[in-house]
Amino acid sequence: MWIKVVNPNTTASMTDTIGACARAVVGPGVALEVVSPAVGPSAIESHHDDAMSVPGVLSEVAAGERAGVDAFVIACFGDPGLLAAREVATGPIVGIAEAAMRTAAYLGRGFSVVTTLARTVGHTEDLALLYGLERQCRGIHATGIGVLELETDPTAYETVREHARAALAADRSDVVVLGCAGMADLGARLSVDLGVPVVDGVAAGVAQAEALVRQGLRTSGREELAPPRNLLSV
Amino acid sequence: MWIKVVNPNTTASMTDTIGACARAVVGPGVALEVVSPAVGPSAIESHHDDAMSVPGVLSEVAAGERAGVDAFVIACFGDPGLLAAREVATGPIVGIAEAAMRTAAYLGRGFSVVTTLARTVGHTEDLALLYGLERQCRGIHATGIGVLELETDPTAYETVREHARAALAADRSDVVVLGCAGMADLGARLSVDLGVPVVDGVAAGVAQAEALVRQGLRTSGREELAPPRNLLSV
Amino acid sequence: MWIKVVNPNTTASMTDTIGACARAVVGPGVALEVVSPAVGPSAIESHHDDAMSVPGVLSEVAAGERAGVDAFVIACFGDPGLLAAREVATGPIVGIAEAAMRTAAYLGRGFSVVTTLARTVGHTEDLALLYGLERQCRGIHATGIGVLELETDPTAYETVREHARAALAADRSDVVVLGCAGMADLGARLSVDLGVPVVDGVAAGVAQAEALVRQGLRTSGREELAPPRNLLSV
Amino acid sequence: MWIKVVNPNTTASMTDTIGACARAVVGPGVALEVVSPAVGPSAIESHHDDAMSVPGVLSEVAAGERAGVDAFVIACFGDPGLLAAREVATGPIVGIAEAAMRTAAYLGRGFSVVTTLARTVGHTEDLALLYGLERQCRGIHATGIGVLELETDPTAYETVREHARAALAADRSDVVVLGCAGMADLGARLSVDLGVPVVDGVAAGVAQAEALVRQGLRTSGREELAPPRNLLSV
Amino acid sequence: MWIKVVNPNTTASMTDTIGACARAVVGPGVALEVVSPAVGPSAIESHHDDAMSVPGVLSEVAAGERAGVDAFVIACFGDPGLLAAREVATGPIVGIAEAAMRTAAYLGRGFSVVTTLARTVGHTEDLALLYGLERQCRGIHATGIGVLELETDPTAYETVREHARAALAADRSDVVVLGCAGMADLGARLSVDLGVPVVDGVAAGVAQAEALVRQGLRTSGREELAPPRNLLSV
Amino acid sequence: MWIKVVNPNTTASMTDTIGACARAVVGPGVALEVVSPAVGPSAIESHHDDAMSVPGVLSEVAAGERAGVDAFVIACFGDPGLLAAREVATGPIVGIAEAAMRTAAYLGRGFSVVTTLARTVGHTEDLALLYGLERQCRGIHATGIGVLELETDPTAYETVREHARAALAADRSDVVVLGCAGMADLGARLSVDLGVPVVDGVAAGVAQAEALVRQGLRTSGREELAPPRNLLSV
Repeated sequence: MWIKVVNPNTTASMTDTIGACARAVVGPGVALEVVSPAVGPSAIESHHDDAMSVPGVLSEVAAGERAGVDAFVIACFGDPGLLAAREVATGPIVGIAEAAMRTAAYLGRGFSVVTTLARTVGHTEDLALLYGLERQCRGIHATGIGVLELETDPTAYETVREHARAALAADRSDVVVLGCAGMADLGARLSVDLGVPVVDGVAAGVAQAEALVRQGLRTSGREELAPPRNLLSV
Repeated sequence: MWIKVVNPNTTASMTDTIGACARAVVGPGVALEVVSPAVGPSAIESHHDDAMSVPGVLSEVAAGERAGVDAFVIACFGDPGLLAAREVATGPIVGIAEAAMRTAAYLGRGFSVVTTLARTVGHTEDLALLYGLERQCRGIHATGIGVLELETDPTAYETVREHARAALAADRSDVVVLGCAGMADLGARLSVDLGVPVVDGVAAGVAQAEALVRQGLRTSGREELAPPRNLLSV
Repeated sequence: MWIKVVNPNTTASMTDTIGACARAVVGPGVALEVVSPAVGPSAIESHHDDAMSVPGVLSEVAAGERAGVDAFVIACFGDPGLLAAREVATGPIVGIAEAAMRTAAYLGRGFSVVTTLARTVGHTEDLALLYGLERQCRGIHATGIGVLELETDPTAYETVREHARAALAADRSDVVVLGCAGMADLGARLSVDLGVPVVDGVAAGVAQAEALVRQGLRTSGREELAPPRNLLSV
Repeated sequence: MWIKVVNPNTTASMTDTIGACARAVVGPGVALEVVSPAVGPSAIESHHDDAMSVPGVLSEVAAGERAGVDAFVIACFGDPGLLAAREVATGPIVGIAEAAMRTAAYLGRGFSVVTTLARTVGHTEDLALLYGLERQCRGIHATGIGVLELETDPTAYETVREHARAALAADRSDVVVLGCAGMADLGARLSVDLGVPVVDGVAAGVAQAEALVRQGLRTSGREELAPPRNLLSV
Repeated sequence: MWIKVVNPNTTASMTDTIGACARAVVGPGVALEVVSPAVGPSAIESHHDDAMSVPGVLSEVAAGERAGVDAFVIACFGDPGLLAAREVATGPIVGIAEAAMRTAAYLGRGFSVVTTLARTVGHTEDLALLYGLERQCRGIHATGIGVLELETDPTAYETVREHARAALAADRSDVVVLGCAGMADLGARLSVDLGVPVVDGVAAGVAQAEALVRQGLRTSGREELAPPRNLLSV
Repeated sequence: MWIKVVNPNTTASMTDTIGACARAVVGPGVALEVVSPAVGPSAIESHHDDAMSVPGVLSEVAAGERAGVDAFVIACFGDPGLLAAREVATGPIVGIAEAAMRTAAYLGRGFSVVTTLARTVGHTEDLALLYGLERQCRGIHATGIGVLELETDPTAYETVREHARAALAADRSDVVVLGCAGMADLGARLSVDLGVPVVDGVAAGVAQAEALVRQGLRTSGREELAPPRNLLSV
């Protein structure tokens, strides 16, 4: 089984973190490929970044499809290009936001998302609504830490932890969802410190992609997500 | 007042139709600019097309912003790049799907959308949900006519009309919304034939953009839609 | 084009304020008529007031219809008699609450309504729900200032501004909607002071009415909003 | 215990039917008063009729309040003036639409409303939404029989029965709600013929009013439904 | 008329309290039977308790059905076994949570539930959603008092009252709903102290059961709630 | 890794089918235990059956917890006892209805459930609502085949297939969900015949349980799902 994880931004160090977290969760016998597009935004912190990352994501999915990849994970919490990617590939496509939020729904009454900048909160609200998880998603909390600053800010972990702690109390939630792929390596430590499950979308996405392939399931080709008639080369 | 209408696809004849319909509705003293991006899909009939049209749309909005445009209309019923465009420009941005659906809400109990291909129906469902119009949107009906075939199929008008007639009965709706900018020139005739209001998004979008400018209103710059920190040049 | 604005209460000074704000937004060549019913409550601050204002509103709409008015605006934030008025007139009817809330939806993620007395909040909640804007309407905040005291209370502006400022923070909203026609003259100043768009329903309603007429759109006469069989004279 | 039932239309024969149905359900020791306003529409078949009936309803409620009535029932399926009446009286006010729909919710998975003219369907949709019963209300079906024709059309019963039978099948519902006070005398026979519970709002409303008084419950006077400051005499 | 009230827990003193409150509200000529199952949890404070109480509840309903009971009330705020009981009995079944919440909906804009342990809040949220009352239910507030401690904790009344007072302010609600049958005797005093209606589910449930029988209404036997094919003896 | 699958009914042949389907999907190194309670209904076809199966399910979960099981799957499409089981065990609990419906959400726009008896449809509606999947769940279609007749009716496969085919068309859905654990062995063949993904809850549940354990995730012990204070022995 071959799973390709696409980090929609072009920051190699973040692709590395994503890869490490993906590898930690994948089952025996699964080949993981973790890539980033050649061009695109270095971090995704706005609707504009999100939109501009999509051509690169689709290009990587198209290349993977030609190469025989079994399933794809789009490893940015905005799930950029998710539906378009489903049109392009035969195997299942999993976005880390949908995977994280649906995974959290198995674990408790409701979850709090802890994320980067306040300006991204609205997009996560839209996703929760579209995925049917607006009730389970009890709050989305920005730490004010930019995506790439997660790697460089020495107090990033403590800031995330304190926002998560406050979120659990304010939202009366019982699960934390990490709202950025750049937080993927914080989950285990955070869960110990907070005493609740902490869901990282990268792990959730890869585990979900593997679970779908194991069940022999693919994206439906009926109507909406069938291959488009005129596929503009990307 | 200067309003720029961006047709997200690259088909010039469709840009011409859009321009004619926009000009018919705009008030005295309003300068209209109607353009299409240099590159992008020739028609938008899939999530993939939608995604690939966005860089071109954003480029046109950025150019308009530099030139002093007062408001923008994105003239494709998928509202591609709507939120990203709001980050880029100072003046208001109106998508024709949101404008058409909200306009229809002033006119009756509920509306039926008549559109092109069945594969686009799901995207319109997502928009209706995000805009809060899922109850008012009583049905979305595909005619099976592709976007560019609207110009060439000699029976296009009759097909649209009969689907609209059937939709009104099946949905118990009282307003028709045209689900494609390529149908912009069918509205008046259709309204006469069906005896109900028919809302064309191009007209609705331009009228709405003008109304917003007349009120001195702009996109909020508070948090989510403020200019992004790192604007990848498009 | 002839637009008739009906102030549902009988306070002439408030009708004057409404008229001034309406005139400031209307396009060239539009005739504005701004009236108040002969009888009815002097201010609308309860469900009872709302109900008792409706016969007067309908009487003014019926008179306007006979005289050839093209569109009507009901200039009270409770939108009293909106659906009944749609049955009576041929041209479009716009309520200022629906116009303000839908207009705000073009400008940001979500809006806060700032209004008069706490007892009116529930009615606005009902309207937001019926119009499909309950998610976009992030909070409704009473200032405690009665409708007519808006004209006489020397601290009214400051009170409204401070409630709006607190509402933006508490609701994490990015647009303010003025929840009373008597606040129509506060919008521009408030927008400067708060740094966000402030939507006044009177301006939004008149602009919307003009936009609808410009598009040649009228209330649907199919079934629900067709003229009633037995029109009790009002 | 004194319960006053207000028929919002002015048709005496319908007030008589309502009275008979109310008396059949009320418990021992309850005094029933069944009235109709002095002026108002003879039947309520439009938003306009609904609005114009409200002053009369409020006048009857105010008179009852002065006389010491314990609870009121508004016996028209549009629940005209319900919230305004709650401001005026001390004791509870029950609308027959809310009572019928909530009563039906105790009896099965979902109900179908069978009503008079198609133009009234939208108003019932609004009520179901406002009351939180839009899921339980699986369909609203117009028979095409006008309110007053229920008394004169010799085939009225059969028409209602066949619409109800078709509604149960089409809606996959298991309860019927009668959507007009003028159908109050059809319930028992219909239930036998259809083999499902049939809820009549007049009976449901009176039983509910009695149940509320028995529990010592009154409308909350906190904020929204407190007596209005300036009560325009009606 | 014979109404059987089933206390799903096995604590006799609580059954006594429930009985006293039920008797205070029932009309003349109604025979009340108040029982508790032979086996089951002594208090219902978890999903596990709720589930384990259901066989006992169903056994009591089945016995009542054989004996000719006209209607049943399940007197625990979790409404355990409600739908299953409807399959078993011919007459109506009323849960005290549904009865309390629907009763509160006649009295004001929205209600606050005051309940026992925080761990029960989620279950009440589920019920409010399933019953369509999630908007009217503005908050669910745990006092931290266990079900059986309501009888023994000398400060229980004051604790409930202060939580209710805070809930009214925080939720902007105007009605209080008591979230445990063990609070049934606190309602009247609480209503005086807080100045708002306080709904006790036991009283609401019994009054509702009587109202349904008075209307001749029974659970629909169409499809879902018809007697099951193979009734495992309980 | 040790996963215990509990078939809530007591029919051994169905437990065998469930076991075979579970084994087909599980990854290398996972130990599967598939059991049925000692006592309980032989098939779950009503709310009564569902309720009566829960004590047996909880007993099996408690035994597994004592023995060190890592995760549990409740293999009945009604998800009986799901929340109670989460209180009892440390590791994650997955219901096959939630797993099937959430899995389907990765594969297309919307799914149709094909199930056994019409009387079970309402319960699935409740689950879809509680899980936030009421929009994605486009229809629930009963075949009229009882749970145990799935094994004995020689036309069962064809009946399920034809109902699924009709459901896809009627619901405009693109995925099929099998609404009974007794259909677990039909999925692959059905997918080939219908040309769309077919999700079997048993496979989805087991794959999901494994994915959760692989991520190191457990049910949150914060508040609602913490171990109950007084665990009635089962």
